[in-house]
Amino acid sequence: MASRSIRLAIIPGDGIGPEVVAEGLKVLDAVAPSSGLAFERTSYDLGAARWHRTGETLPDSVLDELRGQDVILLGAVGDPSVPSGTLERGLLLRARFELDHYVNLRPVKLFPGVATPLAGVTPGDIDMVVVREGTEGPYTGVGGVVRKGTPQEVATQESVNTAFGVERVVRYAFEVAASRPRKKLTLVHKDNVLTFAGDLYQRVVKRVGEEYPQVTTDYCHVDAATMFFVNQPGRFDVVVTDNLFGDIITDIGAAIAGGIGLAASGNVNPDRTAPSMFEPVHGSAPDIAGQGKADPTATILSVAMLLDHVGAADAARRVEAAVSDDLAERAALGARSTAQIGDAIAKRVSG
Amino acid sequence: MASRSIRLAIIPGDGIGPEVVAEGLKVLDAVAPSSGLAFERTSYDLGAARWHRTGETLPDSVLDELRGQDVILLGAVGDPSVPSGTLERGLLLRARFELDHYVNLRPVKLFPGVATPLAGVTPGDIDMVVVREGTEGPYTGVGGVVRKGTPQEVATQESVNTAFGVERVVRYAFEVAASRPRKKLTLVHKDNVLTFAGDLYQRVVKRVGEEYPQVTTDYCHVDAATMFFVNQPGRFDVVVTDNLFGDIITDIGAAIAGGIGLAASGNVNPDRTAPSMFEPVHGSAPDIAGQGKADPTATILSVAMLLDHVGAADAARRVEAAVSDDLAERAALGARSTAQIGDAIAKRVSG
Ligand SMILES: CC(C)[C@H](C(=O)O)[C@@H](O)C(=O)O
Ligand SMILES: CC(C)[C@H](C(=O)O)[C@@H](O)C(=O)O
Repeated sequence: MASRSIRLAIIPGDGIGPEVVAEGLKVLDAVAPSSGLAFERTSYDLGAARWHRTGETLPDSVLDELRGQDVILLGAVGDPSVPSGTLERGLLLRARFELDHYVNLRPVKLFPGVATPLAGVTPGDIDMVVVREGTEGPYTGVGGVVRKGTPQEVATQESVNTAFGVERVVRYAFEVAASRPRKKLTLVHKDNVLTFAGDLYQRVVKRVGEEYPQVTTDYCHVDAATMFFVNQPGRFDVVVTDNLFGDIITDIGAAIAGGIGLAASGNVNPDRTAPSMFEPVHGSAPDIAGQGKADPTATILSVAMLLDHVGAADAARRVEAAVSDDLAERAALGARSTAQIGDAIAKRVSG
Repeated sequence: MASRSIRLAIIPGDGIGPEVVAEGLKVLDAVAPSSGLAFERTSYDLGAARWHRTGETLPDSVLDELRGQDVILLGAVGDPSVPSGTLERGLLLRARFELDHYVNLRPVKLFPGVATPLAGVTPGDIDMVVVREGTEGPYTGVGGVVRKGTPQEVATQESVNTAFGVERVVRYAFEVAASRPRKKLTLVHKDNVLTFAGDLYQRVVKRVGEEYPQVTTDYCHVDAATMFFVNQPGRFDVVVTDNLFGDIITDIGAAIAGGIGLAASGNVNPDRTAPSMFEPVHGSAPDIAGQGKADPTATILSVAMLLDHVGAADAARRVEAAVSDDLAERAALGARSTAQIGDAIAKRVSG
């Protein structure tokens, strides 16, 4: 069958990034041909090493090249040798903002066979999707410092929220909710304290919700939401929330669904004015880098999300099923290396 | 023995507030005489009912009266009939800010016999104190909205952080850490994104830490911290963090330590330029109000913190021990009413 060509940018990054990305690509290679897909790959050397060498995080020229790609797969960036925030703001967040990744999509799903730290919880109890806003809120970088280093220092951070930005992510979240069996959307915010931003989110959810009468909506303060993630995770189906709250609750989501080694994410530009970027939620974990200890599952599940995004839903379902089957047997298999897990999943996908 | 007189302001508030406060006072009555304390009580009618009647949340005149008290016990405020934020900003946060409660002290401790949602965790694994900043950060209310209700609306919230404000809460946290066996202090922030505020916290912890060589310090991003609360709570001894992050992580803290019904807190002015205020972390829970179903334990533990604050450490330890004994037997006792739990703890304290 004739294959459809997709330009794939790869940013392996630092630490365990290259190791997990290698396994993600292995699985992609296993699933692509029979799905009629051919990925034209370009790898970009970005991250701590490049910053040390050149002082660059995400140069304009590379950003321009990325714009010409169809989709991006990122491993992880960051290293203790680089000042905190340098790569996060200069590379990761810059990519999310410049490529207008206004939806940060993070499924929280407990697969059968996976151990959760929660007592008495079964897979059916944890199955939600967090739709995190990706281009606004406290992540804008707006703010500053005066009288730095003096007893009179003042440091500010500003959360910027626009009707434009809130509406587009809320609308996306309603679409996701409408496509799921439970059709429930929960707004998570802190509207009793962050009254201006919270009120904007509330009004937009109410207004857009009128177009989705089939979707039930409710509201939960972020502090209560974190508690419910731990003691009543079944309350949630689809969650929509701002950039910072989404960052926080998706880490609890990862924890309850079996750990950061399994949490996938997509930085999505639903309007397709620029390529979307898929990445595991975990960081570069320099402490275990190069030892074959990293779990590539989050990256492989991110590859499944990437396949969905490029319209290859069948291939995405096959990758997910292979991961699910692997996870179900994992406890019985004992310790495996990063590559062994990737091999096993790739084999299931091909077989 | 001659008794020391302490002026106690009581704000029962809304919903279950009055019910749990009644039990807190019952226990206070039981412990005070033999501890040489006499509480001169004044009750303040603040909350939803007053707002409906008069439009007032915390009038200046009441605030002035509160300033003349030694200490405050608050139940809970809030009701769905009041617009979100009205009582929170107008009463609760106003009190915290005006009375300069710059330390929001929240112990997270799993008592023996208490069920935690976490699998395989025992009481020794969860024993920490969160020192949450109480007068700065995104809670200042700074921010606003332009072009409200239009597609061009912009809503902002500003986090304001000062060297003055950060240093005093960090210093307090070091004192708490130095007084505990593990002597470990973890800064929780998001310095890779909120670079200005995060950097200020980092520098202050480093500088003040030089005065406390016996205390080990480390740092954890807020997103990772929420995950560790769930899957490695034993990592934490004392946590210092900003107002919003503290709000969020203490709710997870409550969840892992047996639920919001047990979580106590103190809004502390360590300089004693105004009275400190003690309150359960939970809200007014209007859905169960008036039914005798509310758990008064969080309020009773807040009374223990109040006793510590007024220098009655022995009485505080007796209340804590009574609570601990009650909790240890609770599972075997079946359902009890709010008053029955209060009676049982009061009896242990007197006995
Ligand atoms: C690395 C950091 C900037 C990033 C974020 O805060 O969004 C990460 O925590 C994530 O969740 O993807
Ligand atoms: C009611 C609300 C304003 C308050 C807060 O956010 O501080 C509450 O959640 C708390 O933690 O005491």
